[in-house]
Amino acid sequence: MNITLAQAESVITAAKQKAAEINTKMNIAVVDAGSNLVAFVHMDGGWIGSVDISIKKAKTAAWFQMDTKALTPLVGPGQPLFNIEHSNGGLITFPGGVILKDASGEIIGAIGVSGSTVDDDHVVAEAGASAVK
Amino acid sequence: MNITLAQAESVITAAKQKAAEINTKMNIAVVDAGSNLVAFVHMDGGWIGSVDISIKKAKTAAWFQMDTKALTPLVGPGQPLFNIEHSNGGLITFPGGVILKDASGEIIGAIGVSGSTVDDDHVVAEAGASAVK
Amino acid sequence: MNITLAQAESVITAAKQKAAEINTKMNIAVVDAGSNLVAFVHMDGGWIGSVDISIKKAKTAAWFQMDTKALTPLVGPGQPLFNIEHSNGGLITFPGGVILKDASGEIIGAIGVSGSTVDDDHVVAEAGASAVK
Amino acid sequence: MNITLAQAESVITAAKQKAAEINTKMNIAVVDAGSNLVAFVHMDGGWIGSVDISIKKAKTAAWFQMDTKALTPLVGPGQPLFNIEHSNGGLITFPGGVILKDASGEIIGAIGVSGSTVDDDHVVAEAGASAVK
Repeated sequence: MNITLAQAESVITAAKQKAAEINTKMNIAVVDAGSNLVAFVHMDGGWIGSVDISIKKAKTAAWFQMDTKALTPLVGPGQPLFNIEHSNGGLITFPGGVILKDASGEIIGAIGVSGSTVDDDHVVAEAGASAVK
Repeated sequence: MNITLAQAESVITAAKQKAAEINTKMNIAVVDAGSNLVAFVHMDGGWIGSVDISIKKAKTAAWFQMDTKALTPLVGPGQPLFNIEHSNGGLITFPGGVILKDASGEIIGAIGVSGSTVDDDHVVAEAGASAVK
Repeated sequence: MNITLAQAESVITAAKQKAAEINTKMNIAVVDAGSNLVAFVHMDGGWIGSVDISIKKAKTAAWFQMDTKALTPLVGPGQPLFNIEHSNGGLITFPGGVILKDASGEIIGAIGVSGSTVDDDHVVAEAGASAVK
Repeated sequence: MNITLAQAESVITAAKQKAAEINTKMNIAVVDAGSNLVAFVHMDGGWIGSVDISIKKAKTAAWFQMDTKALTPLVGPGQPLFNIEHSNGGLITFPGGVILKDASGEIIGAIGVSGSTVDDDHVVAEAGASAVK
């Protein structure tokens, strides 16, 4: 099952609301389970370098069926997946990409958020993800 | 002046409505005057190959400050801009990219639409553009 | 619904058999509905330049939900989709990419074949596609 | 001598069997001695981000005529090949790429496996490699 546009829009709305609440200007991307882009917004004044990062975070989460923060400890020097970022045309392996599951627990896509600290990015992504649970 | 997210969302809403009206499933991208992505939606069941094409149409229009259909007659064999598509990481020079101007006539961004015939794509892009005039 | 590996392998087996029958050495790729690679074989002595072409044909068919030969008349000079090949990191728009539908008519992926004339390529792709109908 | 498709298929079959045995869902790629793709399978439900990683592991092993795990200690910060991953359009230098040698000890290609821990990936790649020894 892939995410619908209506679901993706509810994810984006929830994420935007959380971003505003914590006073950040985020880029927010939603991809389907096959990693194809479904919806995206760039909040006014947000970093434009984060357009691509938010999309890559969402794709990375979809590609590996896990939140990007689960990859973070595995990719440092001396760690098992060091420099995995060179695959797939570029991965982002720090927090801010979160898997989207529907009420039945099936993966239907992923959200990627970029525009503040990685902790803020993750919080906003989680808020988006909660909209489809 | 760059397009705001609120304006981009009104462009997308108008384009989606027109797309539904003419029974098409479109990918719709909005970029700012600097060609950076501001908003995007992929309508359910639409061609996923058109995700990239809609974004490239919007960027192409922003890059050259003209609708993509103004480029079409210039890029054929023997024409002055033949194979210009090799620049900028890939242009799309057929219809469906339309410049966005505000009420004062200033260019604030561009919309790119892909998912049906190029004529349909252009009609939907125009409908989106009319939302910020 | 996406194609399973078992289905993809039956597609490849049928295509290989047809390729041998008509005395060709093909590259045969199968992707899922989201355009991700599921299975691939390169027949002994086949063109290695066709590895990438077969994969791009399969992806192109999946991206646009149609056989690549349906795109061919649309992409020439003066035609509506001229130079669409610059999108998506490279399309192949001549024959040899065929949509895979299951018995219910749903698109579950696509096959791409390259290694002989485009007519041969299409015939072999069709033979592969018939395995999942 | 390059690997034949029949040999590559026996490598894939052995690797798939081992992957199932240890309860993993792998992407398995086989390239020839010249690093060109010969065969590939994506097991149902496997990570789609590992399609590219498995192919890059196989190519990396073929390019340097050694298992990727032999490169791992050489690519960290301060080591002689630090950031070699930037070459060749992207290398993968962690375990899971294994050289394929025939009974006479000649290199005929390489296998790349991705979809679980790097230790699991390597075990499955070794199982595949044993099919042509």
